[in-house]
Amino acid sequence: MKILVALPTGKKHRQLLETACPSGEFVYAEGDYSSENIKGAEVIIGNLPPDRFAECKLLRFVQLGMAGSDNYKGKVPEGVLVANASGAYGLAISEHMLGNMLMLMKKLHLYRDNQLECAWRDEGGVTSVEGARVLVVGLGDIGGEFAKKCKALGAYTIGIRRTLHDKPEYVDELHTLDMLDALIGTADVVALALPQSKESAGLMNETRLREMKKGAILLNVGRGSAIDTDALVKVLDEDHIMAGVDVTDPEPLPAEHPLWKCKNCLVTPHISGFYHLKQTHDRIIAIAARNLAALVSGGEIGNLVDGETGYRARENRL
Amino acid sequence: MKILVALPTGKKHRQLLETACPSGEFVYAEGDYSSENIKGAEVIIGNLPPDRFAECKLLRFVQLGMAGSDNYKGKVPEGVLVANASGAYGLAISEHMLGNMLMLMKKLHLYRDNQLECAWRDEGGVTSVEGARVLVVGLGDIGGEFAKKCKALGAYTIGIRRTLHDKPEYVDELHTLDMLDALIGTADVVALALPQSKESAGLMNETRLREMKKGAILLNVGRGSAIDTDALVKVLDEDHIMAGVDVTDPEPLPAEHPLWKCKNCLVTPHISGFYHLKQTHDRIIAIAARNLAALVSGGEIGNLVDGETGYRARENRL
Repeated sequence: MKILVALPTGKKHRQLLETACPSGEFVYAEGDYSSENIKGAEVIIGNLPPDRFAECKLLRFVQLGMAGSDNYKGKVPEGVLVANASGAYGLAISEHMLGNMLMLMKKLHLYRDNQLECAWRDEGGVTSVEGARVLVVGLGDIGGEFAKKCKALGAYTIGIRRTLHDKPEYVDELHTLDMLDALIGTADVVALALPQSKESAGLMNETRLREMKKGAILLNVGRGSAIDTDALVKVLDEDHIMAGVDVTDPEPLPAEHPLWKCKNCLVTPHISGFYHLKQTHDRIIAIAARNLAALVSGGEIGNLVDGETGYRARENRL
Repeated sequence: MKILVALPTGKKHRQLLETACPSGEFVYAEGDYSSENIKGAEVIIGNLPPDRFAECKLLRFVQLGMAGSDNYKGKVPEGVLVANASGAYGLAISEHMLGNMLMLMKKLHLYRDNQLECAWRDEGGVTSVEGARVLVVGLGDIGGEFAKKCKALGAYTIGIRRTLHDKPEYVDELHTLDMLDALIGTADVVALALPQSKESAGLMNETRLREMKKGAILLNVGRGSAIDTDALVKVLDEDHIMAGVDVTDPEPLPAEHPLWKCKNCLVTPHISGFYHLKQTHDRIIAIAARNLAALVSGGEIGNLVDGETGYRARENRL
């Protein structure tokens, strides 16, 4: 069985994969989806471009290195299983969100700006995580991890997800999306951790941005399309809210886009995920190895993506 | 009994103080220690300048609004009790420290710099709080709160304080200062939360700064004198460590000081405390009210400062 591993791997990672499938014929070719490499592969561990499925006649299983798999929607041939790497990114992205939130609460972005001018200047009042009302929209791995960290730091946490059963102990309240408008004006922090979908696209429109509390913080990871960017610029320029966005619409954000210049907005270039944190990389390979072993033994493959929707079959989306 | 309240107060605060001492004759004069105001006061709630004690013939008790009381060393007349506001600042300062730490771990300071240039540029690898070894030097209210937060986020926490009994559950290891050199090279984060003292002055000299792990983070709140600033600039310029300092030596940091320009150093102008967080102000007034009630009823006054050393009698210093 030919297994193409196109994700980056270290020695430890290769050992883990090879132990999971001792009979496998492993080909390691980081980022290389050339016809020669994918030809004859029964398993591909990597983000195979969706338009390349047609070339893969023997393909049975693809393990993606990404958490978001929406661009595979409707493109997976019958008989091929695709799993994403949901669960690998929660730590990295939730810590990034926490850093963004604290930076805005403590005005550390303004102090950084002052530092560049060598200016010892007091920027006045700050707010705290402890006692803050944090509304997390989307309680998957990333949103859930973020809520858990906020709760551990003394925040009151409110979660929004598709279903109400089995409320996790790290949220004080659990609601469905129909409650968003009732909740949004009560929150000190609104954190979006949503995959691309028709429910999430444009979720934070101008009306909802204006419903947010004066001075509240909006965080966005996941997909930039969840926020109406023009409206965001407008409310930021009016000093109504603050924001930390690791995803934007459009992306990359053009140099001339006014969002860059909004004083109380932190823009990071979609970097909270990737393999930037060593643990993320390790977790992705661990998911791949687990699924490879399941494939070989006929066990249950985790994180399977629904070929029609492009989402994980049991994903906690809205 | 005349009570001068020179700290800022809101209506709620005044009610709290007046309830604690119904027979008191309260004079509210924010920041005004004029002879007229202090004359005849038996109680002063505020940071009476130490050189003014001589004028206060009837003075029995001073409740400071500060956590650090080292500048009262040897200046408190006999018969006058002085209490500091230790315990009021832990929340504000520990959250500030956490923000600094995450900013450096996630390179958010570099992304902020890039944002000012409208540059969508990936800065590469990051590190995480989860799994980090965090060494906290000084486990008073501030250091203790910081260790607790790091522990809640999955760090391995090591505390250094004067005594080993009653290890708090939020530190995985507890040591005394003689272990600093053995521990310093093992830590991903070294956080100093120390009052001014002869043990803390110059604690982080060039040798110890170089003993720190490559890429580790040094945080300093408390007093700037705990770090040799010239040596800090040197190791920062060599990219050996990163740092977040809310206190500096000298202070304010002159505009021409090279520390401002160190890329991986965050300088904030001694602002993590004050009343910048509403909760800090509330906590200070609550301490004052409690001590006022104790004074009236002959109960035990908390946070008493030792007139000879300038420290809280049972303070957790090194």
